[in-house]
Amino acid sequence: MSEFIVYNTLTRRKEIFEPIHPPFVGLYVCGPTVYGDAHLGHARPAITFDLLFRYLRHIGYKVRYVRNITDVGHLENDADAGRDKVAARALLEQVEPMEVVQRYSDNYHHNMDQLNILKPSIEPRASGHIPEQQEMIAKILSEGFAYISNGSVYFDVEKYSISHHYGKLSGRILEDLQSATRDLDGQEEKRNPFDFALWKKALPEHIMRWNSPWSIGFPGWHLECSAMSTKYLGEEFDIHGGGMDLLFPHHECEIAQSRIANGKDSVRYWMHNNMITINGQKMGKSLGNGILLDQFFTGSHALLEKPYDPMTIRFFILQAHYRSTLDFSNEALQASEKGFARLMKSITMLPGLPTADKTTIDIGAWSSNCYQALNDDLNTPVLIAHLFDMSKQINLIADGRESITSEDIKILVQHFRQFAFDILGLIEDTQFSPDNQLLPKVMEMILQVRQDAKKNKDFALSDHIRNELGKIGIVVKDRKEGADWERK
Amino acid sequence: MSEFIVYNTLTRRKEIFEPIHPPFVGLYVCGPTVYGDAHLGHARPAITFDLLFRYLRHIGYKVRYVRNITDVGHLENDADAGRDKVAARALLEQVEPMEVVQRYSDNYHHNMDQLNILKPSIEPRASGHIPEQQEMIAKILSEGFAYISNGSVYFDVEKYSISHHYGKLSGRILEDLQSATRDLDGQEEKRNPFDFALWKKALPEHIMRWNSPWSIGFPGWHLECSAMSTKYLGEEFDIHGGGMDLLFPHHECEIAQSRIANGKDSVRYWMHNNMITINGQKMGKSLGNGILLDQFFTGSHALLEKPYDPMTIRFFILQAHYRSTLDFSNEALQASEKGFARLMKSITMLPGLPTADKTTIDIGAWSSNCYQALNDDLNTPVLIAHLFDMSKQINLIADGRESITSEDIKILVQHFRQFAFDILGLIEDTQFSPDNQLLPKVMEMILQVRQDAKKNKDFALSDHIRNELGKIGIVVKDRKEGADWERK
Repeated sequence: MSEFIVYNTLTRRKEIFEPIHPPFVGLYVCGPTVYGDAHLGHARPAITFDLLFRYLRHIGYKVRYVRNITDVGHLENDADAGRDKVAARALLEQVEPMEVVQRYSDNYHHNMDQLNILKPSIEPRASGHIPEQQEMIAKILSEGFAYISNGSVYFDVEKYSISHHYGKLSGRILEDLQSATRDLDGQEEKRNPFDFALWKKALPEHIMRWNSPWSIGFPGWHLECSAMSTKYLGEEFDIHGGGMDLLFPHHECEIAQSRIANGKDSVRYWMHNNMITINGQKMGKSLGNGILLDQFFTGSHALLEKPYDPMTIRFFILQAHYRSTLDFSNEALQASEKGFARLMKSITMLPGLPTADKTTIDIGAWSSNCYQALNDDLNTPVLIAHLFDMSKQINLIADGRESITSEDIKILVQHFRQFAFDILGLIEDTQFSPDNQLLPKVMEMILQVRQDAKKNKDFALSDHIRNELGKIGIVVKDRKEGADWERK
Repeated sequence: MSEFIVYNTLTRRKEIFEPIHPPFVGLYVCGPTVYGDAHLGHARPAITFDLLFRYLRHIGYKVRYVRNITDVGHLENDADAGRDKVAARALLEQVEPMEVVQRYSDNYHHNMDQLNILKPSIEPRASGHIPEQQEMIAKILSEGFAYISNGSVYFDVEKYSISHHYGKLSGRILEDLQSATRDLDGQEEKRNPFDFALWKKALPEHIMRWNSPWSIGFPGWHLECSAMSTKYLGEEFDIHGGGMDLLFPHHECEIAQSRIANGKDSVRYWMHNNMITINGQKMGKSLGNGILLDQFFTGSHALLEKPYDPMTIRFFILQAHYRSTLDFSNEALQASEKGFARLMKSITMLPGLPTADKTTIDIGAWSSNCYQALNDDLNTPVLIAHLFDMSKQINLIADGRESITSEDIKILVQHFRQFAFDILGLIEDTQFSPDNQLLPKVMEMILQVRQDAKKNKDFALSDHIRNELGKIGIVVKDRKEGADWERK
């Protein structure tokens, strides 16, 4: 098999993936800030790095996948002023902030299960790692790259920039940042507007707070990822992922902090998924198009023509390459829905295909092409195109225009399921399937057919139906007003 | 409605439940130590306090329900020697302890979902509250009720006993404890064998460890519940629950710690569920009868005759009063399974009952009896007996031997569903239902009936079947070798 190539945002090129300590791989991905329900913007990174996690394991690596939960410190704007998102939501809802955290974490997990996202190996919470963050702050202070101002601690970006390259991930230039930064409330504590908070002194009304050597307060948002990735993956690890919206300032700040605290660059490969638009527009609460995942699954949003199964959403996201932007529309989703059904249909048909003495299609070449697509920076649209190609071949076999041996059917079933289910993470028949709703309707209909048969004195048919249902495990009970059924 | 009465383990009598700050209720329940998969011993407290949570909400309280996850500090024996359970498991599995925590927490949550346990309002982890625990230790030290020994901190039970009653919850007597305690490794650090650890210095091989003023170490097991209940429910709160096995030493130690740290008694009502036996024997790994919940649901254990649906387990547990012991056996479970099906059947039948001008059964008295059972310390076996009584009445109505008005049917449906679903937390048709497997079989059978009709030139019937299926949303596709179907 060819080598696995990934695009490294840091070097801006595709590189052969070589882990630091094979066969182990350390993977850290920025998870949700739990102050609201999950929307499409949460689904894309989750699916992208679930795919990466699945593929790394598939090709033999032992992966420790850490995906955090941000439950404190993520301010409403990224400029260290404004309010903590979780605490603000808690005030709004008049509850303890940890109740907000719990509710939205639970909802997030539920949505992730629906999308068939594997659980990460460790899912640490920012609020659960206050000592680790404080120790990292103390280290950065003692190295001279942070300063205390009015009880808060800020990272000294200007000093860092003398000896290090601040902006190497995002390509931002410090001078541009300086002039572009607006003056915001609370900014006067900083030496420079681009400095960022490691520790924020809590205002009296701030409800999430801890003691520290500097003030009663809370950690800055960027810090948690440095502290928790170091704790669970070590000072140097393989892959850090996240949405492109986190590239600056979040990941740029992580690089700077970790560099000073650990004395080395922590991350080998930075990977970022691109953004999602809806009907060509940027997604956002204020624009009224921030469609929640729950709304997709139930169809309860003005922009949606119908509900979409979680697998439709997953398949749709995988039909684009993770580094491309992706536009959601009803038309596109319905096309994905049909395409997904077509694929699943092929998988169902496969084992029952007519067999021959000779196989006329090239399964080996096809499988190798599929791997080539995955190895090329997880090129799922190309992989899915190959799967569709094979669907066509399967139809040709069914129609007798190509042929396959029974041995090769087994191989093809195994490969097809592997790509579709194990790696792409699609699921055939889900708990969300509408079958549960269909059975009572079908049974009602079939009992009506039987009732009609009885009326027409066709007792052979009515008995046949009752007997056949009995074999399946369904008991028919005749009553005055018709028939009823139950499971044995 | 009469008052809600609960049995308070502390006073050893039934008391009227009166919350400190109505309509708010603070409820703390000891959750799992996540070093293994959940078994029956986890299901009983989860279901017991889920019932309490549901009922408190039903009668109008606003409940903050905190159920912790013990992910550090729970030693293999309760005498402060031995190893941390999670860390020991991690060494065994050669993984980072937080991976063990994550895996078993995820599995626990999955099992709880299957049992239809509502999520608690907050689910704090011990490892996520190190600063809070350290602050509590510092407080107890400064009050003079703890001492430092070789880097560990112990609670001074003897000193506490001079001014307070150690043993008031469990009824244990200090002198008896002293003579009964075995000499165990590590015990020599203590002034008295019954003293308990607030902080343990970590041995070099111990992998979960934090800095502290006393040593690099980890908090004692009992401390987390005092620290986290205080943080999320306040220094005084309403109800503390847990299994009877936690009464001593865990809850007794909690009382002592919180009393000293908070200067007052923290808990008003202590509630404990009784234990489970299997075929009359104590449950335990060493006895080979520690059946996991997953094994119950799949039937994969030598002691099980068949798989049992999560709702059978739930119903079975609720058929006993929570303060009674409960013996599991295949016979008893299968009786519950049948009983549960009978109840569900009644609920299904209810809306379609024949109606009359007059109702001959007393719905008001029945409903009031149901509430009386719940108000009597959650007497679910009596409540369930009332539900079965009503099932009988429903059958009598169906047979024309009692009668009901259409108005009363609506009332009865509402009440019945309320007791069974909202309060007892049963679910009618679960994702675990076999319906998903049945539909393809039923469809195969119906398409065969249609095929036969075509063979017999009964095109009216074959067209009728196709059209009726179309109305339900099922498309029939005729092929050479028979017919196939798919959802529209």
